[in-house]
Amino acid sequence: MIPRYTRPEMAAIWEPQTRFRIWFEIEAHAADAMAELGIIPKEAAVTIWAKARDAVFDVARIDEIERETKHDVIAFLTHLSEIVGPEARFVHQGMTSSDVLDTCLNVQLCRAADILLADLDDLLSALERRAKEHKNTVTIGRSHGIHAEPTTFGVKLAFAYAEFMRAKERLAFARMEVATCAISGAVGTFANIDPRVEEHVAKKMSLTPEPVSTQVIPRDRHAMFFSVLAVIASSVERLATEVRHLQRTEVLEAEEFFSPGQKGSSAMPHKRNPVLSENLTGLARLVRSAAVPALENVALWHERDISHSSVERGIAPDATVHLDFALRRMTGLIDKLVVYPENMRKNLDRLGGLIHSQRVMLALTQKGMAREEAYAAVQRNAMPVWRGDGDFLTLLQADKDVTAKLSTTELAELFDLGYHTKHVDTIFKRVFGDA
Amino acid sequence: MIPRYTRPEMAAIWEPQTRFRIWFEIEAHAADAMAELGIIPKEAAVTIWAKARDAVFDVARIDEIERETKHDVIAFLTHLSEIVGPEARFVHQGMTSSDVLDTCLNVQLCRAADILLADLDDLLSALERRAKEHKNTVTIGRSHGIHAEPTTFGVKLAFAYAEFMRAKERLAFARMEVATCAISGAVGTFANIDPRVEEHVAKKMSLTPEPVSTQVIPRDRHAMFFSVLAVIASSVERLATEVRHLQRTEVLEAEEFFSPGQKGSSAMPHKRNPVLSENLTGLARLVRSAAVPALENVALWHERDISHSSVERGIAPDATVHLDFALRRMTGLIDKLVVYPENMRKNLDRLGGLIHSQRVMLALTQKGMAREEAYAAVQRNAMPVWRGDGDFLTLLQADKDVTAKLSTTELAELFDLGYHTKHVDTIFKRVFGDA
Amino acid sequence: MIPRYTRPEMAAIWEPQTRFRIWFEIEAHAADAMAELGIIPKEAAVTIWAKARDAVFDVARIDEIERETKHDVIAFLTHLSEIVGPEARFVHQGMTSSDVLDTCLNVQLCRAADILLADLDDLLSALERRAKEHKNTVTIGRSHGIHAEPTTFGVKLAFAYAEFMRAKERLAFARMEVATCAISGAVGTFANIDPRVEEHVAKKMSLTPEPVSTQVIPRDRHAMFFSVLAVIASSVERLATEVRHLQRTEVLEAEEFFSPGQKGSSAMPHKRNPVLSENLTGLARLVRSAAVPALENVALWHERDISHSSVERGIAPDATVHLDFALRRMTGLIDKLVVYPENMRKNLDRLGGLIHSQRVMLALTQKGMAREEAYAAVQRNAMPVWRGDGDFLTLLQADKDVTAKLSTTELAELFDLGYHTKHVDTIFKRVFGDA
Amino acid sequence: MIPRYTRPEMAAIWEPQTRFRIWFEIEAHAADAMAELGIIPKEAAVTIWAKARDAVFDVARIDEIERETKHDVIAFLTHLSEIVGPEARFVHQGMTSSDVLDTCLNVQLCRAADILLADLDDLLSALERRAKEHKNTVTIGRSHGIHAEPTTFGVKLAFAYAEFMRAKERLAFARMEVATCAISGAVGTFANIDPRVEEHVAKKMSLTPEPVSTQVIPRDRHAMFFSVLAVIASSVERLATEVRHLQRTEVLEAEEFFSPGQKGSSAMPHKRNPVLSENLTGLARLVRSAAVPALENVALWHERDISHSSVERGIAPDATVHLDFALRRMTGLIDKLVVYPENMRKNLDRLGGLIHSQRVMLALTQKGMAREEAYAAVQRNAMPVWRGDGDFLTLLQADKDVTAKLSTTELAELFDLGYHTKHVDTIFKRVFGDA
Repeated sequence: MIPRYTRPEMAAIWEPQTRFRIWFEIEAHAADAMAELGIIPKEAAVTIWAKARDAVFDVARIDEIERETKHDVIAFLTHLSEIVGPEARFVHQGMTSSDVLDTCLNVQLCRAADILLADLDDLLSALERRAKEHKNTVTIGRSHGIHAEPTTFGVKLAFAYAEFMRAKERLAFARMEVATCAISGAVGTFANIDPRVEEHVAKKMSLTPEPVSTQVIPRDRHAMFFSVLAVIASSVERLATEVRHLQRTEVLEAEEFFSPGQKGSSAMPHKRNPVLSENLTGLARLVRSAAVPALENVALWHERDISHSSVERGIAPDATVHLDFALRRMTGLIDKLVVYPENMRKNLDRLGGLIHSQRVMLALTQKGMAREEAYAAVQRNAMPVWRGDGDFLTLLQADKDVTAKLSTTELAELFDLGYHTKHVDTIFKRVFGDA
Repeated sequence: MIPRYTRPEMAAIWEPQTRFRIWFEIEAHAADAMAELGIIPKEAAVTIWAKARDAVFDVARIDEIERETKHDVIAFLTHLSEIVGPEARFVHQGMTSSDVLDTCLNVQLCRAADILLADLDDLLSALERRAKEHKNTVTIGRSHGIHAEPTTFGVKLAFAYAEFMRAKERLAFARMEVATCAISGAVGTFANIDPRVEEHVAKKMSLTPEPVSTQVIPRDRHAMFFSVLAVIASSVERLATEVRHLQRTEVLEAEEFFSPGQKGSSAMPHKRNPVLSENLTGLARLVRSAAVPALENVALWHERDISHSSVERGIAPDATVHLDFALRRMTGLIDKLVVYPENMRKNLDRLGGLIHSQRVMLALTQKGMAREEAYAAVQRNAMPVWRGDGDFLTLLQADKDVTAKLSTTELAELFDLGYHTKHVDTIFKRVFGDA
Repeated sequence: MIPRYTRPEMAAIWEPQTRFRIWFEIEAHAADAMAELGIIPKEAAVTIWAKARDAVFDVARIDEIERETKHDVIAFLTHLSEIVGPEARFVHQGMTSSDVLDTCLNVQLCRAADILLADLDDLLSALERRAKEHKNTVTIGRSHGIHAEPTTFGVKLAFAYAEFMRAKERLAFARMEVATCAISGAVGTFANIDPRVEEHVAKKMSLTPEPVSTQVIPRDRHAMFFSVLAVIASSVERLATEVRHLQRTEVLEAEEFFSPGQKGSSAMPHKRNPVLSENLTGLARLVRSAAVPALENVALWHERDISHSSVERGIAPDATVHLDFALRRMTGLIDKLVVYPENMRKNLDRLGGLIHSQRVMLALTQKGMAREEAYAAVQRNAMPVWRGDGDFLTLLQADKDVTAKLSTTELAELFDLGYHTKHVDTIFKRVFGDA
Repeated sequence: MIPRYTRPEMAAIWEPQTRFRIWFEIEAHAADAMAELGIIPKEAAVTIWAKARDAVFDVARIDEIERETKHDVIAFLTHLSEIVGPEARFVHQGMTSSDVLDTCLNVQLCRAADILLADLDDLLSALERRAKEHKNTVTIGRSHGIHAEPTTFGVKLAFAYAEFMRAKERLAFARMEVATCAISGAVGTFANIDPRVEEHVAKKMSLTPEPVSTQVIPRDRHAMFFSVLAVIASSVERLATEVRHLQRTEVLEAEEFFSPGQKGSSAMPHKRNPVLSENLTGLARLVRSAAVPALENVALWHERDISHSSVERGIAPDATVHLDFALRRMTGLIDKLVVYPENMRKNLDRLGGLIHSQRVMLALTQKGMAREEAYAAVQRNAMPVWRGDGDFLTLLQADKDVTAKLSTTELAELFDLGYHTKHVDTIFKRVFGDA
């Protein structure tokens, strides 16, 4: 967790106090179930809740005990017994550390996913608002960085909207993957713990019981979770890259909001750099880097080993915290993005009409010219314009092969921007529905 | 595609002939829709199908044309016009190469996914059969590679079964992600092509229209697809690692089938190595390696660039072909796995009864001993046994603190294997249902 | 190996015939050494060379034998005995398959490295030639995609030259890492083979003996090798990205050579796309993807397992073949790159003189204005120009705080391009030496 | 930086106070050089050192300024001017933030490398000591997890020693890669700063000047650095995996030191788990995960963009801190590793003599039996022993084809362990030199 890319709400999930709180809840709910089943005295369960429900766990004390026992859950249980008293001996009966640790991790990941889902909702709102605002703002579409044909800035944002809608579906899928609970005891056989305890804890923690857990909740679930975060991060990178391109000096069709007092460069006072988008590009790389170690965590030995643990101590907070920050930053960026429709129009005209080359070629074909011949005729007239020599329409109107098929008026009519935006409504309806 | 890890069925999807066949179908279905809409003559569409429906495309000829035009789709269209004749000028009207290429890629990925889904079904069958066969074959469960408590070999396989059931759900999700079609023309505005053409082609190719495609089908979809293959590959690695462990000389609880005539080592004739599982471990690494470049493919520039293309020419065939091979190999391996229940029982006894340590501790607690005290009493008696000095039950029966709580008979009764397998039914019911 | 990104010279290294040839040489040299040591008859060694020195190995036959034995080296040795006759029983005495396989792989990697080193030499030549050609071609330097201050196109290429010089040093280091030989027998103890045999084979194959090989040559060497290829691929990506930016329609300062007959787009005849650089960007991702599985190959079990093998069957040919292709393609691209100095000059003027902002600020500071104040004065005059309102010099000359320190003539003199290129010589001397 | 895997010494390198201290030194040395060149007043340089040499920078104050300026170096310079007074206006003349940031990062990476080099020295000492201690401790060598032939535990450790010697060479190479300094001003042209300033600062900070830096020090250097850390981490994983295998219940040839009071499992008091090695396996995955984002950082846009920055804020401290911790932990683990030679011997005998199969085969060949025939004869007698039926020597002595070539005495003599260890001296000499 890099402090400057950390929001308190997400960071809180990963604080020791939160973790101990969740551990306590798992143990206390398990005690309830065991009491109900007659395995431990009912008063024990009542006492556990009564004494520790509102406790603030002493993190330093737990750390101290762990230094001796070299075991974090045992350290916590020892501390818990200091709070609860003798009834604490009924806590954790027949359970293993993994029951507590793995169920807790999944609770944390679900909470993180919930924040990320809310982040996505806000980003989607911003994208929708700006897309509708610029639904008809004509701009050049570019393939390979080269002017292709006109589109609208709204369509660009609608594309991003659709992409982050998919991000939401993926995240919902990923959340479901990790929303499981295991209270199955050593090697997962329920030898010392009744499966009904697991069912009870799962219900109370809003999880479903893991069908078969061999002491650990299987790590393919987490690999899937972090892989989904990696895909979402890549979508952040795509949109950030778009903004970086649009803000280039030569393009300047849109620009990150530049606040008064902000300094773009320590050396060059004129600079206004797309630093937020560049930062998002880097954050995307960081979030993505969690995917490979998560995949490497899957192949644990036999019923379990603990190699996944150090990995998760790193990637679980880092990937969720940084993605949360990135999504919020992206939302603010889109929200305040300064758009320059006049520059868009100016750039659109830059290629001397070449962006209408396909329409001319198609018109020639429709008038009976062979496709290959039409392509050659259009390309022949396009190349001088590309080099800056002349205007495309004028050249076409002077080409006899072309005018044999299309009159100068017909040619002029092919240079109409409206032709390119006629289906924007269709696209918006597909993306945003009937609204 | 490494030949020795390639099955013809999957490889066929990625052959040039198949690709050209799919390209043709996309173009021909598009022509049908255009004819229906009155954009091109109905006879043209009929002729296209009539002339090329059964054509075998001349791959060498297409390559030759591509060497001049440096454009694969144009090379194909030129060749197609050699087959179809003058009506070929109505093909590809208002479309871009990406319409053909991206829709084709998604058709190929869906077909690949279908094969992989069938592979998973076969693997699941094998796992289910062997799991039920060994439902009650008692074996030691190991955490950290250390004997923990007993479980059954069937539970181990049930765990793998549940994991590959998740693989199936993930793959279905991934398939859905890439089952889209784009026939939207340059920069995706439908300026030169009616959206109804896309709808028709999508339907005919069993895809859904991409809501908004800016000339390309967005690559976050493919990143998700290859990430899912990576997760499945990691599950293959997990199961392969389990087999490798079981076949170790010191363990030898299960063994890959070793065929007559097979040689384990050129130098040491006695060797029987788990080479299939080791091979699967390596193949998992290979399949996984497709995930990162697929993620890096997402951030294309503006409406599209072509950087994703070379990546996909590599990873699309490689990852699907190698995963297909790996899943089939895994199925065969599980199907013919030689299991040694006697060795399992021998290993189980190796720790001198220590595997019952938890149960003894719990029994002491239930008799009123504090958890910490019970832990210490058990650990104290366990450590000599760990070092090979004595038998756990005998030592416990000689420990006064222990016998103050539990009679020697009560202690002996705690060393019962059935205690650990009593919930195997529950687990099987969860995993396989009522069967 | 994707055929279209494969050059025959590199591909030849990875063909079965080459591999069998290297295997043979290893075995025959080993036989020589054993004969010299009196372990096998001298005539045997002579016969082995005599019979097989010019043999073409029958790949299909070897494959056939392997299908039965499931062991590639045994299959080869069986085929070799068919060629050599009864003396073949003296081949491979005391050796293991790994001795042959691992030494062969390292020979192949060294040969691949030699081709890549030659590729780098050619790329460096092209970069040097073009750098010197454009040493004084003034162009705008850009940070964050925003015009910063002037530089020259030659400096841009000198930067790439220095980067690929580092690539060469890294590759030399990587080659040294894998230039080792192991003929140490089962588990590497030399129990059945004299260490002098290894020394002899190493010498003959231009390798050094692996100090301690536990049947395998340790895979950290190969992880280092593929990591270096990944870094070089990333440098290819950087230069390719530069070209893609320069060819953007709005920038068009340089352009890939566009051959007559080439088609940029099937739909838009006007297009000239930077497809080579985009392709190089994709190839870089592919080459890079070999690094992670190579790293995962390091942790083999005990003295060796075979999980690395399938990985290397993929990444060794793929990464070397694709990087070779990429470097040659990059060389051609740079060699023929079309450079537009006039466009560079036009772009340079685009920001209305803002690129001189730092110099003005420094001049103000030197005249005694506080840095913070100077920054504010310059930024205040820069912002309207950024928005397209007015010319920077004119605005500065009208700002009283500024003219209190600098006369209008002094200000005008600060707008001199030569100021920025005065150290180009220094840079060139550092990069290219005194030439 | 995960606190529990962080050592203060390495962490200190990455603290804000250290960073600001290095920034100050760079600025102050640059001021010295500028004063020497007559660019700024000599007294200014003197004052800068005098006022700030022993300053403790107010991190909170700098953060506060950054919140307004959104620029970290400007925030620092503003704070510095609060300490230094009006002479501060001579600081940073003609420099850019990157000059400070990139040079500082390289200073930090060099310091981190120095700690890691010292870590490696300590690990090497531990490995050497234990290797020599167990030079002649016979143990079984395993390929594919299967008993192969005898080796010694010392050879195993010598193998690790050689691997970490390579790690040292790689790290030295990596350190050299990043030991460069850039003080070249905006876009690296030295327009506003004399190259001699860079030379002076480089010398003072023990770096070499970057030959050509386009405002940034090129990121291929850092990609190489983190790739090397990734390779070293993989070597840590290999050795950790070896220990995990050796500690398995069925093997138990070595064991991590288990301290009094330590608890292996909260549920099973008998457990002693190889948790350190498992932890190292996970840390290796974490350290490795820095390589891909570092590679993705290489392709910055034009003269520079800032996307690398957020990545490096994460990976630079994380990868160095975690690798430092891992190497120290590994050193402690090796230092205190409990080795069980008797168990090694017991395991060695487990396969009923099969580990001598190669020697028997070779002896048969030397007596004139064809290799194929000898292989078959040995394999035929080995397979029953593999299944637990009988003893290898006895079976061989009863096989007529075998005894036709080798007498029962000759056969018995082939079962000699000393045969396998006769070259241990050679190996040790190669690895450790004459000592």
